[in-house]
Amino acid sequence: MEKIIIIGSGPAAHTAAIYTARANLKPLMFEGFMAAGIAAGGQLTTTTEIENFPGFPQAVSGPELMMRMREQSLRYGTRIETKTVDAVDVSSRPFKIKTGKEIFECEALIIATGATARRMSLKGESEYWQKGISACAVCDGALPMFRNQALAVIGGGDSAVEEATFLTKFASRVYLVHRRDQLRASKSMQKRAFSNPKIEIIWDHVPVEAIGEKFLTGVRVQHVKTNELRTLEVKGLFYAVGHLPNTSFLNGQLLCDETGYIKTIPGTTQTNIKGVFACGDVQDKVYRQAITAAGSGCMAALEAERFLEGE
Amino acid sequence: MEKIIIIGSGPAAHTAAIYTARANLKPLMFEGFMAAGIAAGGQLTTTTEIENFPGFPQAVSGPELMMRMREQSLRYGTRIETKTVDAVDVSSRPFKIKTGKEIFECEALIIATGATARRMSLKGESEYWQKGISACAVCDGALPMFRNQALAVIGGGDSAVEEATFLTKFASRVYLVHRRDQLRASKSMQKRAFSNPKIEIIWDHVPVEAIGEKFLTGVRVQHVKTNELRTLEVKGLFYAVGHLPNTSFLNGQLLCDETGYIKTIPGTTQTNIKGVFACGDVQDKVYRQAITAAGSGCMAALEAERFLEGE
Repeated sequence: MEKIIIIGSGPAAHTAAIYTARANLKPLMFEGFMAAGIAAGGQLTTTTEIENFPGFPQAVSGPELMMRMREQSLRYGTRIETKTVDAVDVSSRPFKIKTGKEIFECEALIIATGATARRMSLKGESEYWQKGISACAVCDGALPMFRNQALAVIGGGDSAVEEATFLTKFASRVYLVHRRDQLRASKSMQKRAFSNPKIEIIWDHVPVEAIGEKFLTGVRVQHVKTNELRTLEVKGLFYAVGHLPNTSFLNGQLLCDETGYIKTIPGTTQTNIKGVFACGDVQDKVYRQAITAAGSGCMAALEAERFLEGE
Repeated sequence: MEKIIIIGSGPAAHTAAIYTARANLKPLMFEGFMAAGIAAGGQLTTTTEIENFPGFPQAVSGPELMMRMREQSLRYGTRIETKTVDAVDVSSRPFKIKTGKEIFECEALIIATGATARRMSLKGESEYWQKGISACAVCDGALPMFRNQALAVIGGGDSAVEEATFLTKFASRVYLVHRRDQLRASKSMQKRAFSNPKIEIIWDHVPVEAIGEKFLTGVRVQHVKTNELRTLEVKGLFYAVGHLPNTSFLNGQLLCDETGYIKTIPGTTQTNIKGVFACGDVQDKVYRQAITAAGSGCMAALEAERFLEGE
């Protein structure tokens, strides 16, 4: 029987591990084996330079930051299993955690399984991923490679407009490529897009191919009605087509919002089940940054510790 | 006229600076000059080894971590003034920020002035500060110097009991020194203290002197009724006598709770005044960790940015 099990492997999971390990709770972490299609370490392992994680003035690569966190978790006594959790049973305590044919039991559970940015499976996408293609303008938009360049954003919702607007701070021009003839974004966000002279909306188009040499140099887009093809010469392609929280293994046992994110009491990591805490992107669709995830991992650890002490 | 002014110099302030600077908002930061009696960099500058800031598996010293964050803020264009803000006027926009005889104006304001752990001004306190004396058991309790040693905690409230309980994971014995003959802590916390065989409560005593050689070796305590003195041989002395949020410069203009902490809408950094955001310990009396402060600094930056875009 474990005191604490942590599911996940990103900044939230490892910060929770560092804190609970230092509190002598001997946490057991399931970091997953290519869970949600991503290597252990989570979404950051798919990024290159991280300039905005405080403490790293010279920037740090995503994989290196996660390796450092993992080393820190281990150093204080976290046991890490490279297995993916298939299912949990949180209907009664101890909670049950299932991976393959094994079942583990725990008194407290921290869920930090993250979210996955939707990709589009374009031709050339995997080739230019992080060589021009990114799923996070806030994270990557300020990188030198995108300064004073033409860029493209795919999407039509609030966050697509927000990312496009953000990118106009750096870019010479931003194409907002949307498959319909109107934006899904709110009126005020639409106004923002229309009034920004650097944003050009490419209506009724979908991207079909990322092209380039060593780095991305353009994206082929297709008109959805005429099927006509054209090439946008851009150095950056930003997806803003949503994220999927990794909550399917919960099988509906925790209260989630309509888009699948775990609901926590605001300002805490408390889910609707006592003893089950959620942190990081799996419960955050607003901020979604490495540093906010890490902060919430610490909160989950302190709350879980208080919960266990109170038992 | 500034777009954004940030008041503070700890992890919350610098994370807010890094994010707003990378968003091309050219933040102006007032890091203070020995504000609240602490050097720029905040409470972490008074600590030695930090083992629980994720990303630093070999630990990092408080001053070094803050130097790194400051460098990162500067690198992306933050302007830093080593001046203490004496007063603000947030009754109308632009907000006015007063330091000495100068007045600065800004469209959005981020307050990250932190809190200060109450000290006791014992004889020997400054000599052994961070050489055995600490104001944070969660931060420092797991350090090797405290393992299997007798330790003392000063205080009688919930957090004193919580810190004492936490320390029993590492210590051979924990003295809880309290000036009264009963604890102020809740009944359940009292029960926790009484039932823990490693905790010995020293009733009716106050600490009067920290003694030691290179490091702390004991604390002299005095009985408040008989004035009798005795020495507790301890390697660690932890203050749990509360924190003071640094909000006096606000002069009551923002909604605070009964202990002076700025109130924010839970799960956000939004204060009761539009365009004014608060992050870090100045609005957090629950978690108070470097990493949670940093996370909330990022939130404040993203919220301030959205606020400015929406104008």
